[in-house]
Amino acid sequence: MIYFDYASTSFVESEVLESYSKFLKDNFANADSLHHLGVISSNYLSKAREQVASFFGVGEDEVIFTSGASESNNLALKGVAFKYASRGKKIITTRLEHSSVSKTLEQLEQHFGYIIEYVDVDENGKVDLKQLERLIDNQTILVSICAIVSETGHRLNVEQVGEFLKKYPKVFFHVDATQLIGKYQINIGNIDLLSFSAHKFYSLKGVGALIKKHNVDLIPLICGGEQEDGLRGGTSNVPSIMMMSKSLRLAYENMKKREKYVASLYDYLYEKLSLINGVTINSSKEGSCYILNFSVLDYRNEVLLNEFSKKEIYLSSKSACSSKDKGLSKIVNYLYKDERRAMSSLRVSFSYRNTKEEIDIFVQELMDIMKRIKRVK
Amino acid sequence: MIYFDYASTSFVESEVLESYSKFLKDNFANADSLHHLGVISSNYLSKAREQVASFFGVGEDEVIFTSGASESNNLALKGVAFKYASRGKKIITTRLEHSSVSKTLEQLEQHFGYIIEYVDVDENGKVDLKQLERLIDNQTILVSICAIVSETGHRLNVEQVGEFLKKYPKVFFHVDATQLIGKYQINIGNIDLLSFSAHKFYSLKGVGALIKKHNVDLIPLICGGEQEDGLRGGTSNVPSIMMMSKSLRLAYENMKKREKYVASLYDYLYEKLSLINGVTINSSKEGSCYILNFSVLDYRNEVLLNEFSKKEIYLSSKSACSSKDKGLSKIVNYLYKDERRAMSSLRVSFSYRNTKEEIDIFVQELMDIMKRIKRVK
Repeated sequence: MIYFDYASTSFVESEVLESYSKFLKDNFANADSLHHLGVISSNYLSKAREQVASFFGVGEDEVIFTSGASESNNLALKGVAFKYASRGKKIITTRLEHSSVSKTLEQLEQHFGYIIEYVDVDENGKVDLKQLERLIDNQTILVSICAIVSETGHRLNVEQVGEFLKKYPKVFFHVDATQLIGKYQINIGNIDLLSFSAHKFYSLKGVGALIKKHNVDLIPLICGGEQEDGLRGGTSNVPSIMMMSKSLRLAYENMKKREKYVASLYDYLYEKLSLINGVTINSSKEGSCYILNFSVLDYRNEVLLNEFSKKEIYLSSKSACSSKDKGLSKIVNYLYKDERRAMSSLRVSFSYRNTKEEIDIFVQELMDIMKRIKRVK
Repeated sequence: MIYFDYASTSFVESEVLESYSKFLKDNFANADSLHHLGVISSNYLSKAREQVASFFGVGEDEVIFTSGASESNNLALKGVAFKYASRGKKIITTRLEHSSVSKTLEQLEQHFGYIIEYVDVDENGKVDLKQLERLIDNQTILVSICAIVSETGHRLNVEQVGEFLKKYPKVFFHVDATQLIGKYQINIGNIDLLSFSAHKFYSLKGVGALIKKHNVDLIPLICGGEQEDGLRGGTSNVPSIMMMSKSLRLAYENMKKREKYVASLYDYLYEKLSLINGVTINSSKEGSCYILNFSVLDYRNEVLLNEFSKKEIYLSSKSACSSKDKGLSKIVNYLYKDERRAMSSLRVSFSYRNTKEEIDIFVQELMDIMKRIKRVK
């Protein structure tokens, strides 16, 4: 079996899974219970919060634990939109966002009368700052831009956008960093809100966080108890939060080493694909080395995926959260204005566990498929 | 150690924890990935959905998996409120709801201009149907009433309310059944929306569900991918959902036996407490046998909890999600209009693992505390 779908979700590192079981056996109490067992849970929660905060250089009260990045994105966008509605209703984003950002903004537009505008991003992932400047007006309350495009791995210039937005103190800046956290460092000095999920960096599903700076207020998405400073009700999932914090530490400790290794896989595959006639790379060399998107022109991506799957090679065509939208990749089409590419795009996404041998097998299989299967014009 | 705080959260049954680890080792793929591993995950998810649906006699597409009851309650209330705003903005509830219902309704009132009205409930947990009839008008879109009051165990006549509401087909009925599911059967024939959490019935934290009948539409709380019929975005937490389904099966298989046993504990404690001068029972004999709330008059509940905690006896004064609201219990005060009782109320909540020996130790300790600690008038 060859698994090349890590941008979708990852295995859980065995030491994390073992810690989880061990932790849960002894610590199941509610972190909000006032008795001694509750205090122990609450102390573990504080430790995890302290550790997560330390990786981003923020205060502990700037970390909101959630059920994952989709919730974090919804909380950030709706939280700001509803809180600052009296100030204005315009939000600026890109055409490259994950569905948990794009669909949330569509809901705000269609149901709540917000105005959503889109800033252009070029083929190398650079947001057009001049256009952004023209789009911002006194009704603008929020800019939301992903750090890494989940489908193509383009790394957007969010730090530069943050720097640029400093002159608009009333415009908050949200970054969906789901594909970045655990893989790259990020300076969030000029970012007000940042979302991520644990299951992208070898931890459990069902847990994530929103970093929310002091200067921005939110209306809670999930009202209830006083958990997370009253911004996210519900019994704290302390065991999963503990594991996210542990996985994040492991990711930071091994970040450089893993990045170097995965970059070598990326380059190796990039080079091999470049030699195949009819294959076009959709990722940018300046992007994430964890995601390599390419098109096998005149082959429908679903057909290719199915052929690979038969050989126990698992990759994807786009974000799993958009997998049910059949047909072309809106993101590849946006970037290259080329439906032929967008109908035939595939995404390989790596972890540090993948190998060059797997890439060899994959490339050989791709060439076999291209011989075996008829092109569709 | 004696743990009497199961209404707050429970241990995870060891066979569930073992299954979880085992399952996750082999099955981590995203249920929305189109490849074979994704299909396997998706099949497991379908199986879990089928099983959960079968316990409630609903269709598989009437089960929405969430991160827990707080999310389910928010999704039900805001989902209906925003969807049917053009029909009316009045919602009716009780003064006995968990904070994830009451605070959500407060948010709808304060931020979105909804009208929240409260129907009375008597000391035995009977909702005043005549008053409910007077409160309902053509602006009313929703009635939200819990099945069992988390603080006192009062069992509200939700099935009767559902029957009554049949004559108002435009008024939806939501039931927060968090303290009931896994402990009692419920006929949801006349209930449109029903919330619960897995961690209350010996399963993992961070997972729950909302049962949503076909006749009611919702606006999603967490927008994103097409998971859960487009009503709840985010990578499906298949391992935790599988375990919730397993725990629910175990709960149903053992329900009668456990209830009979826990009822014997309840009666045993009830009788012992009745003999102590200065102790008043706040629960109703017609309520849940899993929760016994009582007041130790003229003792502050925090002081009592602290004394018990020193002896490794863990119980609570109210819902953990309201534990940070110091002082009197609003719910006990609402039911009995007696601040003296509301300042001194304690909640013992049982599981099938508790014993009469634990109750003996608890009662002895209570009497010792009452001798040792000074009353506050």
